[in-house]
Amino acid sequence: MEFSELIKTATVERVVLSRAGLPAVRGTLCITSHHLLLSSCRDDRPGTLELWLLIRSVDAVEKRLAGSSGTITLRCKDLKVLQLEIPGMEECLNIASSIETPEPEAGGRMAPLPPRAALPRDRLAGEPGGRNAAGLAQKRLPLCAGLPAGARAAGEAPEAAPTLHLPQTNRWRLSEVNQDFTTCPSYPPAVIVPAAVDDDILRKAARFRQGGRFPILSYYHRKNGTAMLRSSQPLTGPNRKRCLEDELLLGTVLDEGERGFIIDTRSAQAAKQARMTGGGTEPKSSYPQWRRLHRPLERGRPLQESFTKLVEACNDTSISMDRWLSRLESCRWLSHVKAALSTACLAAQCMDREEASVLVHGAEGTDTTLLVTALAQVILDPSCRTLLGFQGLLEREWIEAGHPFHLRCARSAYSHARLKQEAPLFLLFLDCVWQLSRQFPFSLEFDERLLLTLFDNAYASAYGTFLCNNEKERCLCKVKESTLSLWGWLNQPAERKKYLNPLYSPNALVIWPSVEPQSIQLWQGLFFRWIRSSQYLDEAWAEIQRLVESSNSPVNESAGNSLSRSLSNAAAQEDNER
Amino acid sequence: MEFSELIKTATVERVVLSRAGLPAVRGTLCITSHHLLLSSCRDDRPGTLELWLLIRSVDAVEKRLAGSSGTITLRCKDLKVLQLEIPGMEECLNIASSIETPEPEAGGRMAPLPPRAALPRDRLAGEPGGRNAAGLAQKRLPLCAGLPAGARAAGEAPEAAPTLHLPQTNRWRLSEVNQDFTTCPSYPPAVIVPAAVDDDILRKAARFRQGGRFPILSYYHRKNGTAMLRSSQPLTGPNRKRCLEDELLLGTVLDEGERGFIIDTRSAQAAKQARMTGGGTEPKSSYPQWRRLHRPLERGRPLQESFTKLVEACNDTSISMDRWLSRLESCRWLSHVKAALSTACLAAQCMDREEASVLVHGAEGTDTTLLVTALAQVILDPSCRTLLGFQGLLEREWIEAGHPFHLRCARSAYSHARLKQEAPLFLLFLDCVWQLSRQFPFSLEFDERLLLTLFDNAYASAYGTFLCNNEKERCLCKVKESTLSLWGWLNQPAERKKYLNPLYSPNALVIWPSVEPQSIQLWQGLFFRWIRSSQYLDEAWAEIQRLVESSNSPVNESAGNSLSRSLSNAAAQEDNER
Repeated sequence: MEFSELIKTATVERVVLSRAGLPAVRGTLCITSHHLLLSSCRDDRPGTLELWLLIRSVDAVEKRLAGSSGTITLRCKDLKVLQLEIPGMEECLNIASSIETPEPEAGGRMAPLPPRAALPRDRLAGEPGGRNAAGLAQKRLPLCAGLPAGARAAGEAPEAAPTLHLPQTNRWRLSEVNQDFTTCPSYPPAVIVPAAVDDDILRKAARFRQGGRFPILSYYHRKNGTAMLRSSQPLTGPNRKRCLEDELLLGTVLDEGERGFIIDTRSAQAAKQARMTGGGTEPKSSYPQWRRLHRPLERGRPLQESFTKLVEACNDTSISMDRWLSRLESCRWLSHVKAALSTACLAAQCMDREEASVLVHGAEGTDTTLLVTALAQVILDPSCRTLLGFQGLLEREWIEAGHPFHLRCARSAYSHARLKQEAPLFLLFLDCVWQLSRQFPFSLEFDERLLLTLFDNAYASAYGTFLCNNEKERCLCKVKESTLSLWGWLNQPAERKKYLNPLYSPNALVIWPSVEPQSIQLWQGLFFRWIRSSQYLDEAWAEIQRLVESSNSPVNESAGNSLSRSLSNAAAQEDNER
Repeated sequence: MEFSELIKTATVERVVLSRAGLPAVRGTLCITSHHLLLSSCRDDRPGTLELWLLIRSVDAVEKRLAGSSGTITLRCKDLKVLQLEIPGMEECLNIASSIETPEPEAGGRMAPLPPRAALPRDRLAGEPGGRNAAGLAQKRLPLCAGLPAGARAAGEAPEAAPTLHLPQTNRWRLSEVNQDFTTCPSYPPAVIVPAAVDDDILRKAARFRQGGRFPILSYYHRKNGTAMLRSSQPLTGPNRKRCLEDELLLGTVLDEGERGFIIDTRSAQAAKQARMTGGGTEPKSSYPQWRRLHRPLERGRPLQESFTKLVEACNDTSISMDRWLSRLESCRWLSHVKAALSTACLAAQCMDREEASVLVHGAEGTDTTLLVTALAQVILDPSCRTLLGFQGLLEREWIEAGHPFHLRCARSAYSHARLKQEAPLFLLFLDCVWQLSRQFPFSLEFDERLLLTLFDNAYASAYGTFLCNNEKERCLCKVKESTLSLWGWLNQPAERKKYLNPLYSPNALVIWPSVEPQSIQLWQGLFFRWIRSSQYLDEAWAEIQRLVESSNSPVNESAGNSLSRSLSNAAAQEDNER
């Protein structure tokens, strides 16, 4: 059944739209297959579009009937709350039932939107030529940060043989063992593995890892040639099974006498208990060169509840200061932010300071694992801190790496559905990146606005970028052919400008964040975005951006140089201070 | 006994100075009558002055001896912590005892520093000509914000008869009833009172108010002619005493049928209990036009303990996130900030929205009373939000109004002395102003750096501005003759520049802050100033300032105009949004 068939009332007149911080507007409500529209007609002006809302961005619908009219409260996935006062009880009920989207099936896939219909009207004008432009954008995204240029080119065109120029990278090769998604359904077709290990060994090692997620290269630290790998847990099970191919794979990563670190994102106890259900950890005896460190990170239901509780507390503006702080504490969101940043720092320190390679995994290897590997790269690698580099990181470490976006971000903080698989891991990552951007105001090319756009699109998007749970599903759904890419949209010059940090000055150094609890702040720009207007803060920011631009223009060249010099000095100090 | 006589060891070689976030330095420690100096002599360079510390800025001294050497930890009133490793046990003990300043006597006065000796070396070069420059700066400070120019000129020269030009101000006059400090020892010689009330009535009314603090004009709201008065509590006592002169004084403030509000900064119960010790409140029956509102604000020991606990928690960087948030909650500092802002908003609302005059008092009328009246003026009056206007506000509403700085700011958060009279009311005020500056980034001409400088100087200063407890004591100590004024120093062009908010755009509107608990933030710039370096944030800010300046230069005039226009628009929106 097409969604459009569910629409019983397509248009209602004299609907009043209310939003926090904005005056109420009266207009005509119109419901289409994908959108909810409200156009106001004030006395003297033609109808202006006041609302253009993607129906799938609605997280929860509440209806309240009073007399012959009703009020519908729409709580959106981006945390926005809208109210519609609708004259006519039947109309109200019909509109509400049209918006109440069916729950996604477990493991199911959300049907992609047709590329043109999906875009808001104002966006169609500047549409960058569909997937082609997006494809171009993606062409520039390397398969793995830190690998030299030759290896990157290979990553872009998996059909060509990888050309590894630099001596230190002859240890790694591109493998197409997963070309048809049979070795690991959640991995992309091409992965980087130790050169000494052939595809047969990979296939066997994959059988020893949950979901087939055998250890692959996530990041190569050029400075000292150390590597960060990621995988899922080994299927040790209650009988302490071993797998020689897995041991061989990890063994070839380290030279004789070298030591590596396995960062397990579960507690030692949880890792041990996982043996009962077929999982487990790498025993010291079978992996003698690897030392295991346990850094438990929350995921799943507890993390989702933390998010829900935080949003509830943020929306409750009538509470006392004590109650607010106590709820901020008890929701534990900031603890999760701190823990994620600390663990990412640990991984980065192992590589950068201990000069040791690292393997990161939890259980499935699709959640906290990716949180840690992606964050560690932002900390270590300046190329991940550019607008384009960050997109590449998201593509590699979240989308292609098989973070199940569809399951994790099916519902946001308001839904009462409480699906089992939901968890805001990606939001937690964005929050951690925001903390980095706050602590290092010069070192990220993009700013908060990009992070907010990514959050919005991960939960409900007109673009195909975050659809489905992994590359295999995206192939089956023909996402690449039938949707537009968010990157293609973002990278248009006019759009790109909106996300740039005016104070950016490339910083070649590692940015070690402070992870003391006093340094971690609540991300007001996200959690209070729709509660309190930040218009004047936004304008201040826009003004600073304009000033930097005009100072970099030829007339002001000397000023521009001095800016860039002063910022570079500051950037260098950032590292020295730590 | 002169302080210099207490110095047993004047110079020690090879002392190592350590500070958080900075590399340790070895050098020669030198102790003078007022300062502690450390000059380093690195291999190739001549001695550079690494430390120039006012001894009275030390809040607590701890010594630890180990073998033949010792370590002295100095905890300063500005919350900085220093460590000195001193070779030689005797030297260590001597240095420590020289620094351990005697406790100030209750009600005592700190001896002013000789003007030249008091200034750090780098400041002497640019010294603005002593008190004269200061005097000039003070000349420009009006006696009462909001009064028209004629009344202000009178305020500057109390000996001249007040010239009140505007019709609405013929209700107020300047009185010199307190010229010799006999009517009220904690009031300045000149005060503004209702014109209909003569000095005899004032003298009688003063006897009915604690410490003689009869109701005087604090702020005149030009927009609608309402007034804010302040006083101490009436001495109603257990027998419900009345005072016709006091009733008359307050009665003349309101026209027939007009209503005024008394904002009592104590709970209704506390105000009632105060009758047992001779105090009390204005009973409805005797002041029929005045409606009493109770808004309890913390002061005294509980407030000092809140400050101490907060600083302790901020310095404990090894705690968990939960523990940090729980300590932030239990210290209640942010609750006090919220309560102070809310009460100031209430006073401002009474005047601006209810068009009603207001009387503010607690018990003594020297603490929470001033907090509320000063804050309400920053909210209501744009002239209090300029650098000079804010200095005038501090002069009027804190210094001349008789906030006992010497007693309240004798010790800061580290001292174990726990004097009875200490309380960080002034710091709480500065924190509230910081909250306003954060919520209204365009509307204050000065920025955080001014607030930090004021905090530092209120607790320990080379200037005379915050010395003593009231004007009477300042006269006795000849503070004006024998010390320099902080304002004179701040208002020199080169110095003044350091405190300006680059985004400032005059905003004629009232700035209504959000006082929801989620809007109140911990003032990181103060509480983490010495714990975490903010050098790169400072540099970013300096860069923005430079950009604004260059954009306002003639070459960029159009850009400058657009900046100013855009900021004014934003400033106007600030108000409309609320």
